[in-house]
Amino acid sequence: MNDNWLDQIKWTDDGLVPAIAQDAESGRVLMFAWMNRESLGLTVEKGEAVYYSRSRQKLWHKGEESGHTQKVKSLRLDCDGDVITMKIEQTGGIACHTGRESCFYREFQDGEWVAIDKVIKDPKDIY
Amino acid sequence: MNDNWLDQIKWTDDGLVPAIAQDAESGRVLMFAWMNRESLGLTVEKGEAVYYSRSRQKLWHKGEESGHTQKVKSLRLDCDGDVITMKIEQTGGIACHTGRESCFYREFQDGEWVAIDKVIKDPKDIY
Repeated sequence: MNDNWLDQIKWTDDGLVPAIAQDAESGRVLMFAWMNRESLGLTVEKGEAVYYSRSRQKLWHKGEESGHTQKVKSLRLDCDGDVITMKIEQTGGIACHTGRESCFYREFQDGEWVAIDKVIKDPKDIY
Repeated sequence: MNDNWLDQIKWTDDGLVPAIAQDAESGRVLMFAWMNRESLGLTVEKGEAVYYSRSRQKLWHKGEESGHTQKVKSLRLDCDGDVITMKIEQTGGIACHTGRESCFYREFQDGEWVAIDKVIKDPKDIY
């Protein structure tokens, strides 16, 4: 496999691309993070999501601490070549560091962001 | 309605937040774009997606040219407060400027990005 598919991606000036992880079965958006060229290459190689942590400035193999790895079933690229979606199987059913299925657990209701999804596992028991 | 909900968003240094639009029924990710404070406020006010075009550096009421507006059914915010998802009803069933349902029409297959979704309407007939 050559690297043409990586060359086709329009990386940001910082060499990143946004990646949206969706549950492979339900389609629910579980999280949003960034990847660099190396992490996207590793994601395909391993079949598990590897992001690039902008805050820690290093590769972030999702689940390396929590055990909540993400098995990648398929990948898509958008029309502009600058955003990726991934269908994943989420180990433990928990993608969010708050112990919830999805990072998007707050819904807009009457002018407020309201946490409406339950915590599946106490973060203290995850990390 | 006060602006607390807008203050809770962690805007980028450029004053933006990524917004992921999903079909309200199927959950399919249709597009990804950016919003600034004004466009997000207008999105809620109008009940239709208003983005901020980084290339044109102005508000972008989705569908203003194509007619393919997006009726916003619900909004969510992620754990870090820096990404939004929206469940929308896509007018015409076409979110992508290529005339396809979704901007994510290319799938990764054997080391290549392959366009697998059909064009619903010729872009020449849209714009």
